Amino acid sequence: MSRVNLHYLELKDSYLFRTIDRKTTEYLQEHPGQRLLRLGIGDVTLPLAPVVIEALHEAVRDQADKASFHGYMPEVGAPFLRKAIAGYYAKRGVQLQEQEVFVSSGASDDLGDLLDIFQRGIDTLLIEPAYPAYRDANVMAGNNIISLDSSERDGFAPWPDASISADVVYLCSPNNPTGAVYSRDKLAAWVAWAREKDAIIIFDAAYEAFIQDDAIPHSIYEIEGAKSCAIEVCSLSKTAGFTGTRCGYTIVPLELVRNGASLNAMWVRNRCTKTNGISYILQRGAEAVFTDEGQKQVHEAIALYKANAGAIMEALDACGIWYCGGRNAPYIWLKAPGGMSSWELFDTLLERCQVVGTPGSGFGDCGEGFFRLTIFGSPADTREAAARIKALWG
Amino acid sequence: MSRVNLHYLELKDSYLFRTIDRKTTEYLQEHPGQRLLRLGIGDVTLPLAPVVIEALHEAVRDQADKASFHGYMPEVGAPFLRKAIAGYYAKRGVQLQEQEVFVSSGASDDLGDLLDIFQRGIDTLLIEPAYPAYRDANVMAGNNIISLDSSERDGFAPWPDASISADVVYLCSPNNPTGAVYSRDKLAAWVAWAREKDAIIIFDAAYEAFIQDDAIPHSIYEIEGAKSCAIEVCSLSKTAGFTGTRCGYTIVPLELVRNGASLNAMWVRNRCTKTNGISYILQRGAEAVFTDEGQKQVHEAIALYKANAGAIMEALDACGIWYCGGRNAPYIWLKAPGGMSSWELFDTLLERCQVVGTPGSGFGDCGEGFFRLTIFGSPADTREAAARIKALWG
Repeated sequence: MSRVNLHYLELKDSYLFRTIDRKTTEYLQEHPGQRLLRLGIGDVTLPLAPVVIEALHEAVRDQADKASFHGYMPEVGAPFLRKAIAGYYAKRGVQLQEQEVFVSSGASDDLGDLLDIFQRGIDTLLIEPAYPAYRDANVMAGNNIISLDSSERDGFAPWPDASISADVVYLCSPNNPTGAVYSRDKLAAWVAWAREKDAIIIFDAAYEAFIQDDAIPHSIYEIEGAKSCAIEVCSLSKTAGFTGTRCGYTIVPLELVRNGASLNAMWVRNRCTKTNGISYILQRGAEAVFTDEGQKQVHEAIALYKANAGAIMEALDACGIWYCGGRNAPYIWLKAPGGMSSWELFDTLLERCQVVGTPGSGFGDCGEGFFRLTIFGSPADTREAAARIKALWG
Repeated sequence: MSRVNLHYLELKDSYLFRTIDRKTTEYLQEHPGQRLLRLGIGDVTLPLAPVVIEALHEAVRDQADKASFHGYMPEVGAPFLRKAIAGYYAKRGVQLQEQEVFVSSGASDDLGDLLDIFQRGIDTLLIEPAYPAYRDANVMAGNNIISLDSSERDGFAPWPDASISADVVYLCSPNNPTGAVYSRDKLAAWVAWAREKDAIIIFDAAYEAFIQDDAIPHSIYEIEGAKSCAIEVCSLSKTAGFTGTRCGYTIVPLELVRNGASLNAMWVRNRCTKTNGISYILQRGAEAVFTDEGQKQVHEAIALYKANAGAIMEALDACGIWYCGGRNAPYIWLKAPGGMSSWELFDTLLERCQVVGTPGSGFGDCGEGFFRLTIFGSPADTREAAARIKALWG
C-alpha cells in the first residue's frame, strides 16, 4: 500500500469564505436591486505600473529572438534581480550579500516550502489570529503547533513569552489579518527570544511597502542579531500588484547555521533540486519595481489604497470603534461594536450597509468579536462604505 | 536547538558539470585558437514560437489596464489552460476531467514537491541512470531509495522486477539521460506491477513531444488502468522552449485513492496552501502552445532539433557505435567505442573532435561506459560534430 501523508487528513476545512459567499448570494437573491460594497477582498485591483509593463514587454521581445533568448535561469534567481533586491535593502541600511537573496514565485510559495529544510515533527509557534496557510503547511509536515494568542491589549502584536520554546516561529508584520505592526522594541525582543531559544524566525514581510511610520522596521534584519536567527519572506504581490503576475523573494542569511548545517546552503540545494528557477520574463518585470521610477509608480498605487484606508479609519474614529491596522498595513481589524460576535457584525454590515467584510473568528478563536476590512476595493465603493458605517454608528 | 532536516547532509555533491567546466576551460587555455562544439547542453536554444510571443504580449497588455487586470489566479491553474491541456490529451484519446489537470511552474517543480503528499521514509524505486533530482528530492525526504539498473540489454528501458516492491516509482519516457522510450507493452507491465504492488507511478513525460513513432505512448494514461496508479508530470520546457519562461502541468487522476484519501484532493490542498497559482501571463503563453497554430509552430522547432538528432545518428550508424535515443527523444546515449570509460570518451571527443558531451557515469554507476549527446546545439555545430565523429571512427 503506497503510504500517503496522512497528516493531510488532520487539516480542517475552512468554511469561512464559503459561508461568506452563501450569505452574500442569499442577500442578493432577496434584495435584487442592491449592489454590494466588497471590502473583504484580499486581492489588488490596480493594474501593474507602466515601468513594469514596459519591462515585461521587453522581456517577451527578448524571448522572441534567438540572439536575446533566455533558457534556464539560475534556480536561486537571476543575478540582475538578486542585485536589485539587495540594493532595495541597502537603502534601509540592511547590507545583504547577493547570495543571501533568493527569487521566488511569491511569499506563499516559500512560506510553506521552507519547512522542507527543517525536520518533521518540530515545534512551530504561531501567533493567532494567523494567515491560515502557516497552520496548514505545518499540519501537512506533521509539526507540533503551539499557539500564542494576540489581543486588543497588546494591539495584536504580542511580546514573546519566555516560557515558550519552539524550533520555528512565524512573525508577520504588518500583519495579515490584523494589520498590526511590530515596533522595533518588540521585534528586538523576538530576536532576543529566538537567540535565547535557538529558534528560527520566519518573518513574513509581504506588506512592508504599506508602512508609513518611519519608526516601524520593514525588515527583521533592521534588528541587530537577526541574521543569525531569521529567514525573511517577501513578495511583490501587494507591493506592486503582482498577485496574478507572481514574483517574490526570500532572504536566508549566510550566518544562519544549525547543527553545523548552513541553512543558506540547504536552501540553495532545495531550490536546485525542486525548481528550475523563476521565469526570465517575470524577473525582468520584478527588476523594474526596484528602479527609482518603479518605486515612484508602485507607491502612487499604494497611496491610492492608503486613501481608502484613510476613509475607513476616519469613519471608525467618528464611531468610536476600536481598530488596529490601516495606517501601516492594507488591513483594518476592528472590534465589533456593542459586543457583537464577528458573524453578527458581518450580518449587520451586509443588511444595513451592504458592506461585505471578513469575520475575524474565521482566522482563529481569538479573532472572535473582531472583523477585517481591506483597502483594495475601489475608492468610490470604499468611501460609500465608510459613509454608511458612519451613518449607522457615528 | 532548531531542528533542521539532517537528510540534506546525506546529499552527494555532483562534480559532473564542474569537472566538465574545468576540463573544457583547461583545453581552451592550452588551445587558444580552438572553438568547442557543445553537445552537452540540456537547454533549448530556439526562441519562443510567434503565437506564444503574441499571447504573452497580449497578457502583459491585460495586466496594464484595470478593466482586464488579473489578480490571484486559481492555485490549481486557470480554467482556460486546464481546458486546453485536457483537450491536448483528448486528441490522443486520453479523457481527463479539467479538475485532474494542475498547472505548474514546470516538471522539475512538481517532481519533488509531489513527495509532500506521501509519508516520509517511503520506499522509492529509481531506474538508473536517472535524472539526479529524483534521487536528491527523495534523499531530502528521508526516503529509502531502491535502484533498478537499466542497460544496453533492455535498451535502457527495463521491465518491472516482480521481486521489488515500492511506494513510488519514477518512470521517465522518453528518458533523460538515455533517450530510451518505453513501449506500450513495457508501460502496461509497469502499470500491472504498480497495481499489483499498490505503488504509485510518477510518470515524467517532459520529452513526449519528441516522440515520432506512432506506437510509443506519449502519456501513461494511454495504458488501461493507469489512472488508478499513476501521476503524470509534464512541461513545456522542451516542447515549446519554456526552460526560461516556465510552465508545465501535472495530472492527478480522481481515481487515485490510497488509505481512503484522494490524492487529487490532497494535491488541491497542497497547491492552495503552498502556492498562489501560476502567473496569468505565463498561462496565457502556455495556452497558445495548445492551439492548432501553436502546435504547428512548436513542432517546426522540434523538427529543427530532430534534424540535429538525425545528423548525429547517421554518424554513429556509420561508425557502428551502439546508441539509443535520438529518434523519439532529445538525447542520444551512446556506448563508448573500444571499451573506453565515459571520461576517456569525454577526453577523446574533446581533444580529437573539440566536441563536448556528458559522461554517462555522471548519471549513476550503470552509466559507466556510456555518453550523452543532446540535440539542442546549433545545426551547424551539430553537423560539424557529427562529421568529426565520423572521420574519427567511421
